[in-house]
Amino acid sequence: MLADERKQSDNAAISPVERLNALIAQDMQACDRLILKGMGSTVKLIPDLARHLIESGGKRLRPMLTLAAAHAGGYSGGGHIRLAAAVEFIHTATLLHDDVVDESALRRGKVSANLVWGNKPSVLVGDFLFSRAFQLMVETGNLAVLDILSGASAIIAEGEVMQLNSARNLSVTEEHYMKVVSAKTAALFAAAAESGAVLTGKGEAFIRGFEAYGENLGIAFQLVDDALDYSGRQALMGKSVGDDFREAKMTLPIILAHARAGEETRTFWKRVIETGNQTEADLNRAITLVEETGAIQETMRRARVYADAAKDALGILPASEIKSALSDIADFCVERAY
Amino acid sequence: MLADERKQSDNAAISPVERLNALIAQDMQACDRLILKGMGSTVKLIPDLARHLIESGGKRLRPMLTLAAAHAGGYSGGGHIRLAAAVEFIHTATLLHDDVVDESALRRGKVSANLVWGNKPSVLVGDFLFSRAFQLMVETGNLAVLDILSGASAIIAEGEVMQLNSARNLSVTEEHYMKVVSAKTAALFAAAAESGAVLTGKGEAFIRGFEAYGENLGIAFQLVDDALDYSGRQALMGKSVGDDFREAKMTLPIILAHARAGEETRTFWKRVIETGNQTEADLNRAITLVEETGAIQETMRRARVYADAAKDALGILPASEIKSALSDIADFCVERAY
Repeated sequence: MLADERKQSDNAAISPVERLNALIAQDMQACDRLILKGMGSTVKLIPDLARHLIESGGKRLRPMLTLAAAHAGGYSGGGHIRLAAAVEFIHTATLLHDDVVDESALRRGKVSANLVWGNKPSVLVGDFLFSRAFQLMVETGNLAVLDILSGASAIIAEGEVMQLNSARNLSVTEEHYMKVVSAKTAALFAAAAESGAVLTGKGEAFIRGFEAYGENLGIAFQLVDDALDYSGRQALMGKSVGDDFREAKMTLPIILAHARAGEETRTFWKRVIETGNQTEADLNRAITLVEETGAIQETMRRARVYADAAKDALGILPASEIKSALSDIADFCVERAY
Repeated sequence: MLADERKQSDNAAISPVERLNALIAQDMQACDRLILKGMGSTVKLIPDLARHLIESGGKRLRPMLTLAAAHAGGYSGGGHIRLAAAVEFIHTATLLHDDVVDESALRRGKVSANLVWGNKPSVLVGDFLFSRAFQLMVETGNLAVLDILSGASAIIAEGEVMQLNSARNLSVTEEHYMKVVSAKTAALFAAAAESGAVLTGKGEAFIRGFEAYGENLGIAFQLVDDALDYSGRQALMGKSVGDDFREAKMTLPIILAHARAGEETRTFWKRVIETGNQTEADLNRAITLVEETGAIQETMRRARVYADAAKDALGILPASEIKSALSDIADFCVERAY
């Protein structure tokens, strides 16, 4: 066994996310401290509810991208910590509002905040965190990052509305689905990486490289998420299966399975998606259908294409441990599904 | 009749809000155009829903404060229009989220957006407008106004959560109520005026004067609103009466009426507010009680104190038509209730 192979085999024990985390450990800890501080309020319900979500073991993937980009560009100021915390607050705010919107019963394997506290506080605490995010960005004194993240926030909201509009509608196209994914998920991944890169003052190629990495990683991430929603593995990860199905969301597995369906099966999809008349047995049939038609496999194949594009976008960077970890994260993002 | 008196008598025909509007008419129109443009989106539901609220005849009081402050300071750039539109978007976003939160049936005399489109789009379109507000502020290139308005947004959310926490609780103090009013209403009035003043580059006294004017006007405005919710006049204005009562909100009329109640009446308040067991006849009894105990009169008396403080805060300004209109708006804010 060559030295390189041995090294790789040692690395295989920990995920590339953990590896990147270790490379920027001090900054991640500083970011965590700032997150804890930023969600503080004399109105006790705010930190109570925010903590429920923020401390529930999310991977902090988005702020990690911000910090990694700042590191890779040799940034030496303190703005990246604030920016990373802001990115996590925007993400948390959208989760809180998404839970209200989707009436999700589970979020990160825990009962969702809106079921514990009600819809009302979830909306308002989301607004609070969103405002805090902008306060933190203002503290960086950098208008360019404010521009990037306020633009991304508007796009996220547009994406969520688009998704809402396309639920229960079997005529939704793959193209429309990809627009939703780009807006509701990839926009924040892209903005997180891009804004961290902007802070460094490096040139346009460096910034666009990180933006493209974030965008493609975000799309791959969402495609895998949508595949996992029809997978038994999801249950092992503490997430509920079939959330998208129950909400009649038109994700790629359904779009493809419906396109490939025979007449009898189309009647099934019409009933469960368009009329919303469903049972738990229908979920099992849906899982069988998305697997049998190869819809899951095709969704994963496309996720792989975007993960590869994310890796290619890193081409602008000189070799470094951060670059290697980011590249492996793109692979990991797809492989976590197997 | 002296010339001055005649002038005053002519003025009496139009409200001071209309007078101020006329003084800054070009800017108000530019602001309206920017609002229309800013709520645009290829996702059609967004402008549809936003227009429902924005075009429903709100007085644009908050952006008017921003524009008036900029004018009073002789500002000649274009940032105040963007800032004013941003202020209106923040206000509209909070209304949309407030309607979700309070399940209000009426807003500005029209069926509330959440009843037409559902809670889900109201939350998301609110998020969109909030993001747009920050994009417009970024366009001003002024970090100080971003700081003021992101801070105000966080305070507004805190105020809304505080109000939520204090519903159905007869032990809420006047002091707590005033904190809620300061946060949920006055913070945006203050920030709207302050940020407009900041743009002008005038000194600290000018800025603090406008901030204090906005803060005090906002408190007076909310006190009058809370009194009007128990007033038959409200119905004539196309607003529903008794919204606060039905939601068991602890506003000043209830706090005072309960404090002044005898034992038998306290049992009534306990039932309708704390247990939430209410009929429409109970609303009529509540209206009688807040009037008989002088709670409405006292609420209005306090509104007058804050309106006077708002007028005093204008002391830093040299005499001008804008100053005179702002001063009269403070009076009008209280007098509209009679």
